[in-house]
Amino acid sequence: MLKFNLKATENKARRGELETAHGTVQTPAFMPVGTCGTVKAMTPEMVKSTGAEIILGNTYHLMLRPTAERVASFGGLHKFMNWHGPILTDSGGFQVMSLSGLRKITEEGVAFQSHIDGSRHMLSPERSMEIQYLLDSNITMAFDECIKYPSQKPAVKKSMEMSMRWAKRSKDAFKDRNGYGIFGIVQGGMHEDLRMQSIKALTDIGFDGYAIGGLAVGEGQEMMFSVLDYTACALPDNKPRYLMGVGRPSDIVGAVLRGVDMFDCVMPSRSGRTGQAFTSHGVLNMRNARHIDDHSPLDAECTCPACTQYTRGYIHHLIRAGEILGSMLLTQHNIHFYQNLMKQIRLAIEENRYQQFHDDFMAKYAHDRKM
Amino acid sequence: MLKFNLKATENKARRGELETAHGTVQTPAFMPVGTCGTVKAMTPEMVKSTGAEIILGNTYHLMLRPTAERVASFGGLHKFMNWHGPILTDSGGFQVMSLSGLRKITEEGVAFQSHIDGSRHMLSPERSMEIQYLLDSNITMAFDECIKYPSQKPAVKKSMEMSMRWAKRSKDAFKDRNGYGIFGIVQGGMHEDLRMQSIKALTDIGFDGYAIGGLAVGEGQEMMFSVLDYTACALPDNKPRYLMGVGRPSDIVGAVLRGVDMFDCVMPSRSGRTGQAFTSHGVLNMRNARHIDDHSPLDAECTCPACTQYTRGYIHHLIRAGEILGSMLLTQHNIHFYQNLMKQIRLAIEENRYQQFHDDFMAKYAHDRKM
Repeated sequence: MLKFNLKATENKARRGELETAHGTVQTPAFMPVGTCGTVKAMTPEMVKSTGAEIILGNTYHLMLRPTAERVASFGGLHKFMNWHGPILTDSGGFQVMSLSGLRKITEEGVAFQSHIDGSRHMLSPERSMEIQYLLDSNITMAFDECIKYPSQKPAVKKSMEMSMRWAKRSKDAFKDRNGYGIFGIVQGGMHEDLRMQSIKALTDIGFDGYAIGGLAVGEGQEMMFSVLDYTACALPDNKPRYLMGVGRPSDIVGAVLRGVDMFDCVMPSRSGRTGQAFTSHGVLNMRNARHIDDHSPLDAECTCPACTQYTRGYIHHLIRAGEILGSMLLTQHNIHFYQNLMKQIRLAIEENRYQQFHDDFMAKYAHDRKM
Repeated sequence: MLKFNLKATENKARRGELETAHGTVQTPAFMPVGTCGTVKAMTPEMVKSTGAEIILGNTYHLMLRPTAERVASFGGLHKFMNWHGPILTDSGGFQVMSLSGLRKITEEGVAFQSHIDGSRHMLSPERSMEIQYLLDSNITMAFDECIKYPSQKPAVKKSMEMSMRWAKRSKDAFKDRNGYGIFGIVQGGMHEDLRMQSIKALTDIGFDGYAIGGLAVGEGQEMMFSVLDYTACALPDNKPRYLMGVGRPSDIVGAVLRGVDMFDCVMPSRSGRTGQAFTSHGVLNMRNARHIDDHSPLDAECTCPACTQYTRGYIHHLIRAGEILGSMLLTQHNIHFYQNLMKQIRLAIEENRYQQFHDDFMAKYAHDRKM
């Protein structure tokens, strides 16, 4: 059971608070991704210093290494990785499709081979719940099938229907306790009728929150927003809504306008490791030689260590020399940038000026929408 | 000009203080290596938190990328890399031999090709001084030739004699100013008469400190100690003595006994990145599967973040998963271990019990001496 309080709304946009056993999360919230029990290139203190209140862990990766049973023996994922705030774990459904070898999907679940050592494993709703319980995840995600995009509507419908049966089995297998909860995942591709059937099925089961899956899979921002237009606001008002795997800053700003409360994405961390910096003036490629003699900070408006203590020229040097510190500073900066964006979003909703904030942002970052 | 004060001595072992324009260094001191303008996998704050007071920068790497002129345009290496303590730079002599392509050594200096892009460069005593001046190095090293080991005595003698002529040219080209100094480098291989000739040549020129070069090149600890036995104490009492590129903990403990004040080595940082941990019970290979279920800290006697916040099992997991955080934590731990060793060494000399400390350490870590 998780407590979710709406503190303010402006049209569809919502400003809320989600209480977990490991602390409270202000929403709209962005969750940095800690795939293998670490947000890559960051200590937990560095993650916290960005303003992040909740992180995401990956069931698929952790079940293979070091295994969920081993994480449990270390006292759960919080203790294992020294992150004492809330943790959401995905169900493994998405990654088993994108990363593992030889898969066989049946009504029972998914049999697959590890991408690490080829060993054989099984993920099912019941096993996914058990793993997320062993990890001590505050927010467990229901196990679902993630069908490839694009697919024919009959296939999307068939997959969604199985995901809804798996959602029921997930809910039944979830061990409820105070400060912990389970989210169902809406599927149905780009089809409004299927999305509505999925929402009906999930709300009949009843979850602590609702995620929107199957988006940001290559359909483009316009299509994603059009699905969100009818999907987000059809979800229960009194539960948090989580758009999985999203996204670019403009994706987030647009999704909040449509009623989404939570986000996760590898973009700020992964792009940091490859030399990309999100700034208030757009995205910079720090490998680019034009930064070599630049004495200015990455982003003069940013208060993170990379911006207050270093120049663009130095960060360019680190990236070109392949230095780990370059990954550390850019990851920290990018997550700081995302957290600062969420802070601005929350404040704008509180002050009932989110529509204006959204419009200004979309005009300013129109170029980002084509990234 | 640098000020060096001896605060205590015990036989040949010395406890001193070296004053520079960027702060005071307590000796015996260990300098972490920041090759390309960063101590790999560490922020300057993390380096400082280990207790390190001075770091080393590499002339060869920095002259090629980002270039000394560019570092100067950023206000010098301290500002460029955000390390505000003292910095010693090597002369480039050693690395031009070990890293660069197509070299031609003449009396004038060394012509070589960059290992990065094949571009052609020249290092000479005058150019090395200019580069180290542009970097704003607190301690400039004289430019010398590092002959391969083993070499025939006539070749060692010839090389040493050229290095002494280069030392004179280095001193002449060095721009003296308050809080900055230049060290000469004793060469002469494993030959006492050549070492003494080298010391005579250097002290006739007069330097702010004296380094011992050409050791830790494969001769073994016993041979190194036998060279130090006659070399270190033949150097002026009132100047700091620096053993270049050394070494293992037992190398340092033995060298301090023989009168050495300063050390640098990539060992704690490089070995950290490959999963090695120095502990009070010896060296651990954290890749080893025996750590997988170990809930204990790396080193129960250590107060660094890796030891107080994480388990061996977690660090093993990070190393096996190839996570950057594993490199960060082990590098910080290893440098902390080295700095803590230096602290113990300094205290033991102050308390006039260094011989006992040395004997206990050598008995306990006898196995390390064969590493």
